Amino acid sequence: MSKIFVDACLGKETPYTPVWMMRQAGRYLPEYMKVRAEAGSFLDLCHDPEKAAEVTLQPVDIVGVDAAILFSDILVIPDEMGMDLSFVKGEGPKFSDPITSQEDLDRLIGGEEAAGRLTYVYDTIKLIKERLADDKALIGFTGAPWTLATYMIEGQGTKTYNICKKMMYTNPELLHNILAKVTEVVKLYMEKQIESGIDVVQIFDSWAAAIEPSKYDEFSWKYMIEIADYLKAKYPHIPIIMFPKGIPAFIERGLVYGNFDVFGVDWGTPMAFAKEKLGDKYVLQGNMEPCRLYSKEATTECVEALQEIMGSKRHIFNLGHGILPDVPVENAKHFVKECHRVSRKG
Amino acid sequence: MSKIFVDACLGKETPYTPVWMMRQAGRYLPEYMKVRAEAGSFLDLCHDPEKAAEVTLQPVDIVGVDAAILFSDILVIPDEMGMDLSFVKGEGPKFSDPITSQEDLDRLIGGEEAAGRLTYVYDTIKLIKERLADDKALIGFTGAPWTLATYMIEGQGTKTYNICKKMMYTNPELLHNILAKVTEVVKLYMEKQIESGIDVVQIFDSWAAAIEPSKYDEFSWKYMIEIADYLKAKYPHIPIIMFPKGIPAFIERGLVYGNFDVFGVDWGTPMAFAKEKLGDKYVLQGNMEPCRLYSKEATTECVEALQEIMGSKRHIFNLGHGILPDVPVENAKHFVKECHRVSRKG
Repeated sequence: MSKIFVDACLGKETPYTPVWMMRQAGRYLPEYMKVRAEAGSFLDLCHDPEKAAEVTLQPVDIVGVDAAILFSDILVIPDEMGMDLSFVKGEGPKFSDPITSQEDLDRLIGGEEAAGRLTYVYDTIKLIKERLADDKALIGFTGAPWTLATYMIEGQGTKTYNICKKMMYTNPELLHNILAKVTEVVKLYMEKQIESGIDVVQIFDSWAAAIEPSKYDEFSWKYMIEIADYLKAKYPHIPIIMFPKGIPAFIERGLVYGNFDVFGVDWGTPMAFAKEKLGDKYVLQGNMEPCRLYSKEATTECVEALQEIMGSKRHIFNLGHGILPDVPVENAKHFVKECHRVSRKG
Repeated sequence: MSKIFVDACLGKETPYTPVWMMRQAGRYLPEYMKVRAEAGSFLDLCHDPEKAAEVTLQPVDIVGVDAAILFSDILVIPDEMGMDLSFVKGEGPKFSDPITSQEDLDRLIGGEEAAGRLTYVYDTIKLIKERLADDKALIGFTGAPWTLATYMIEGQGTKTYNICKKMMYTNPELLHNILAKVTEVVKLYMEKQIESGIDVVQIFDSWAAAIEPSKYDEFSWKYMIEIADYLKAKYPHIPIIMFPKGIPAFIERGLVYGNFDVFGVDWGTPMAFAKEKLGDKYVLQGNMEPCRLYSKEATTECVEALQEIMGSKRHIFNLGHGILPDVPVENAKHFVKECHRVSRKG
């Protein structure tokens, strides 16, 4: 049975434009909160294939999206490379021993061994695929090497990225060594996700905008493209979505290129601009401002505007960033319904 | 005596391109840390004209910049409107009673009364002007109404701006009422800064990028332009610098217009792009990535690249955001020296 979401990613005709939401398996859903409370910590939930599969499937059933996205966290990768990940309440992720030197990096587990430790992710994928309807797609994902490296170097989230950027300007070799080691793990990790059953890959470069445009290709995009090239050579039928957040200036400067299928447009980048610059080469995904979900009227206004710009082809509806925890579920349902309504053909 | 910085803002010929740095009076300077420790809290320092004047002048003497910028904080405005500002160590600014309704807003002090309470700022300006060399300029500043409103509504800094954006999409009237009341105070506040002796005005819209492009004009830029129009009508000889951070997409969409002199380019916006789109209308200020200051080589590379793009006219060197606390002072001096070296004529 053909999956409308996969077809849309590959630029094929579909009866309507599919839709999903970043962070759709999340705290705005009471059903998620229930499973989350049973699981223990956030990381416990990531490690529990049965429960992770359950929350992955919830938004498909409850909100009616066309694709599920694997419930996990980008930071399980450095965690299984041997960095000690924890989530401190109200403070976010922490690594107790950030990378400061080549010796620190050399101590980390790399390649096949690190990718092999992420068994709970592959088990989760297999469980989801047993239960997901045939016409719905499952999206697997990873963080971009740059985004992962920011946490590995800073030891936590950061406003200024000053530790990794000090490294960028004073010790670029070490930063490249970190990025290369992470890239190797990510390639094998995504390959194992595909072998476990995911239908589509999304690469999140959440902190793309932390790099100045003249350095973005060198320190992030080329590693993302290396991953895409590796996967496309082996699995040409699996669509790849690139989502670098906050980079209209990079689009303007022609820094978006390479072998992938879908470009994820963040909400700060006008869709008409993205279409003009990238629409011929890539299917575009996005890009409603997530806070519009607080209002049904503001949601409909944006969905209609996106439909006007994109028409019913080479487009996937989505938010331009993750759905927020205090959005009413009925507004999320309204968004999905409106996307289907405005784009349905005939 | 003519001030090279003021001349450059007005697009006149200057013997070299002037330079200053956002947050140049700040924690990277041991001399600042000494005065800060003597003053007590950060807010105590803002309230002490003698000490605020002293730290304002330090970077002119120590680093050699061409303009001083008033030492103060954008949040003294809502503080004097009757919101109770405090700075919690490690957490940043807090207002104990954020605005949630028209009644909350009506309780705040507005217009002339609020502007009249900021006497410590005007006294600081007078002290600085007594001591500043005649060929150096003093920049006064304010936060943009939108940026100020984010703190007044959220009660603190925010990653998602979800409370103010919920207001934007569900109760835009209230948000506009807040913005209008703040705009009135800012107009009078900047007028009093000018009457006290500042040579140039900078308006910081630090959180410009929190608004989606299609809403930016309505909720921020038009209020900034209202302030600029008011000041330009009364003080046409005082240059105005607009610095909305993070908005290459807005530049692309033609959302930058109006009666001001200098456009501040953040480091995420390529200078060549800003020049192409705005260089004929506005003098451009910026835009070295502040983290380049960790390396003298990376600093020189960027200064030379900016000189290559801009030439020695209609440009002011600056960082694309504030200098970070752990930058070596000698690197800041190197930056200033290099800007003067590459741009000096004849």
